[in-house]
Amino acid sequence: MRVEIVTLFPELFDTFVKTSFVGRAGTGGQLEVKLRSPRDFGLGKHKSVDDTPYGGGSGMVMRVDVLVACMEALDAEAEAEGKPRARRLLMTPQGRPFGQPIAARLAREPAFMLICGRYEGFDERVRAFVDEEISLGDFVMTGGEIAAMAIVEATVRLLPGVLGNEESIREESHGEDGLLEYPQYTRPAEFRGAAVPEVLASGNHAEIAKWRRAQAEERTRARRPDLIEAASRKEHR
Amino acid sequence: MRVEIVTLFPELFDTFVKTSFVGRAGTGGQLEVKLRSPRDFGLGKHKSVDDTPYGGGSGMVMRVDVLVACMEALDAEAEAEGKPRARRLLMTPQGRPFGQPIAARLAREPAFMLICGRYEGFDERVRAFVDEEISLGDFVMTGGEIAAMAIVEATVRLLPGVLGNEESIREESHGEDGLLEYPQYTRPAEFRGAAVPEVLASGNHAEIAKWRRAQAEERTRARRPDLIEAASRKEHR
Repeated sequence: MRVEIVTLFPELFDTFVKTSFVGRAGTGGQLEVKLRSPRDFGLGKHKSVDDTPYGGGSGMVMRVDVLVACMEALDAEAEAEGKPRARRLLMTPQGRPFGQPIAARLAREPAFMLICGRYEGFDERVRAFVDEEISLGDFVMTGGEIAAMAIVEATVRLLPGVLGNEESIREESHGEDGLLEYPQYTRPAEFRGAAVPEVLASGNHAEIAKWRRAQAEERTRARRPDLIEAASRKEHR
Repeated sequence: MRVEIVTLFPELFDTFVKTSFVGRAGTGGQLEVKLRSPRDFGLGKHKSVDDTPYGGGSGMVMRVDVLVACMEALDAEAEAEGKPRARRLLMTPQGRPFGQPIAARLAREPAFMLICGRYEGFDERVRAFVDEEISLGDFVMTGGEIAAMAIVEATVRLLPGVLGNEESIREESHGEDGLLEYPQYTRPAEFRGAAVPEVLASGNHAEIAKWRRAQAEERTRARRPDLIEAASRKEHR
């Protein structure tokens, strides 16, 4: 998979693309990351990438011409290397909220481009040059970089052969059955008076499975009843 | 504000805490970040931080004794420096989904600690040692680090004096009125046949305000009707 990232802060990704399983996916050949700054396409001697908004208002708006030049340079680079053209994703609070179904879909793409803004936002006309718009959630960020990292991490871990033995693919949390994960315990058997539940040390696999299922259901009901509602709506469709 | 981060990958935060406005908040004195790895409290010659789950299953579980030792070391360090004890936030998919109200609340805390996991999850008993549990969203990550960065970015930008002139506090997106932001435009006036809407160049401030409000409403209705429903539920409470 090829991931192209348009960002004014490529250095934010330096350690990220080298660390943990994302780094391993890079050295293992499952992932190729290309970073490109719109600054390289900035205008004038200050390499400007933004300007004041038409109609007034505070803050600066990122220019459409500079951003499109950057995206098209990445396309040209991919074409020159015989690589597929990337699907373009704009990181914006106005986009579709990111979730596991989007991660699963992106994991099947040969290439995608994550376009990160800074400042007050993008010139509206940028939207005509992207394939979709994604939001990380209902909170205000100052740039798209953290959203881009979240999307890369959630997607790359789904690629075959990326996760090692110590990290299994956990579809249980928000997975097929839509429940939160059951409680996990490891050594020590007792810590400051709190012991591991007896059933888990019983060796009775049927009882353990039953306990875990009941705990997952109870926890989901208590913490995220919306997930149960969503799963039941799905079933009745 | 003091932010303490418990992570097996402190290097992931190296550039993040130095870049953009988060870096400026650090040099400006509004933000102090302390990173600490549970590995420093790991057991045996391999400095183990995890172990296999009781009751069987794939993956490894982070040990409660190691994590609590790391958290308490951070508390002791704060106390020695005469700093407030941090509120402890566990980064977990089972937590409360992060959103702007949580960011606003955290921005008023003098200190908080973000506890990041890796592997299959935390020993259940860790939950008794934290004040709250937060999830970044309904997608599966392999660690809590990206969630921690999102929380730091969303929170720090709300601190007084952190955002410069080029980045204004944008409460409009998911803010008080609960609407998505209206479209923004900057130069050039025309790009590949697409022009800036005439009203924005009219100089008629009342008309501009009316157009922006209508656009924000239309966009929110089209893209995120759930935000309008949520806002109207709030009004009728």
